[in-house]
Amino acid sequence: MKLLEDKITKDGLVLSHDILKVDSFLNHQIDASLVSEMGKEWKRLYENEEITKILTIEASGIGIACIAALYFDVPVVFAKKSKSSNIGNDFYTAQAYSFTHGNTNDIIVSKKYLSADDKVLIIDDFLANGAALNALVSICESAGATVVGMGVAIEKKYQGGGDKLRAKGYRVESLAMVNSMSPETGVEFYRE
Amino acid sequence: MKLLEDKITKDGLVLSHDILKVDSFLNHQIDASLVSEMGKEWKRLYENEEITKILTIEASGIGIACIAALYFDVPVVFAKKSKSSNIGNDFYTAQAYSFTHGNTNDIIVSKKYLSADDKVLIIDDFLANGAALNALVSICESAGATVVGMGVAIEKKYQGGGDKLRAKGYRVESLAMVNSMSPETGVEFYRE
Repeated sequence: MKLLEDKITKDGLVLSHDILKVDSFLNHQIDASLVSEMGKEWKRLYENEEITKILTIEASGIGIACIAALYFDVPVVFAKKSKSSNIGNDFYTAQAYSFTHGNTNDIIVSKKYLSADDKVLIIDDFLANGAALNALVSICESAGATVVGMGVAIEKKYQGGGDKLRAKGYRVESLAMVNSMSPETGVEFYRE
Repeated sequence: MKLLEDKITKDGLVLSHDILKVDSFLNHQIDASLVSEMGKEWKRLYENEEITKILTIEASGIGIACIAALYFDVPVVFAKKSKSSNIGNDFYTAQAYSFTHGNTNDIIVSKKYLSADDKVLIIDDFLANGAALNALVSICESAGATVVGMGVAIEKKYQGGGDKLRAKGYRVESLAMVNSMSPETGVEFYRE
């Protein structure tokens, strides 16, 4: 999606080969009108699919998932990061390792809000190694829900998480795919 | 706002005199079309005010703030809960005591995303004692930004936080105001 790529080129900060900061428009300050265009694009990509729910993970997935949900006219459910590993039987749980924070989070979704009838679009801001998305897939599997596909804002393609998900048969629609980046040369986007 | 009051009456769970669970439509599962109507209502209430930024706090404020931002056509900034109290000089910080979790959070906002030029609408899902909103006001004061007003989904009026903010001169627009509640009788809304 050219609009997002241009925004990344203009306002993204490449701190290293691994770290792209987009907190001026995506995950601390949020450019709601840009995100609205992203939602519209995911709707275009998935327009022939039946989707009953959008699933994301706190915190930075919530804003983009909620705005996208307006185009799909379905509820959003966001997985919470649990502080306690003893949360009873009312939740689906999965573990997600965070490379940003260097720790493992237990993420939880109430069993009330995801069921075997649901056809789920998973949305998140970043896809690198795929830890968060795989944890959300695992939660859908626990619920017996169908994963229709994934909508990602920025995929760091060279980290492989997206291609592993595609190899498993999941549809992954990333609106910007980073092929490589460095503080000196900036971001080079992947072209198919 | 009748739509929100009706939703609370229908789907809110009153667990005690203090605890109202709205996680089926506001802070775990999110009814995006309801939230869109809430955003429209805040825009109506503040339509004569100049607003340059919406400020909220993670996690459950983010979704409603992002959808509201579409009506105001301004960026959202969400305060993050900091794990470290040593975060350098690049952030405004404040402390917010969480009655839900029984702990104090340091919340932070990058100095890049709030300035003395900003006219801020603060949005959050709940207003009880006002701890979160007061922390966000404190961050605006640190930035020299103007607080134009606040948009709250549900105010528990009997806990007094909203009236303390109004007594200080802040405009607080709560879309549903709870006068009292109990598991036996449900929610009674405040009428002026």
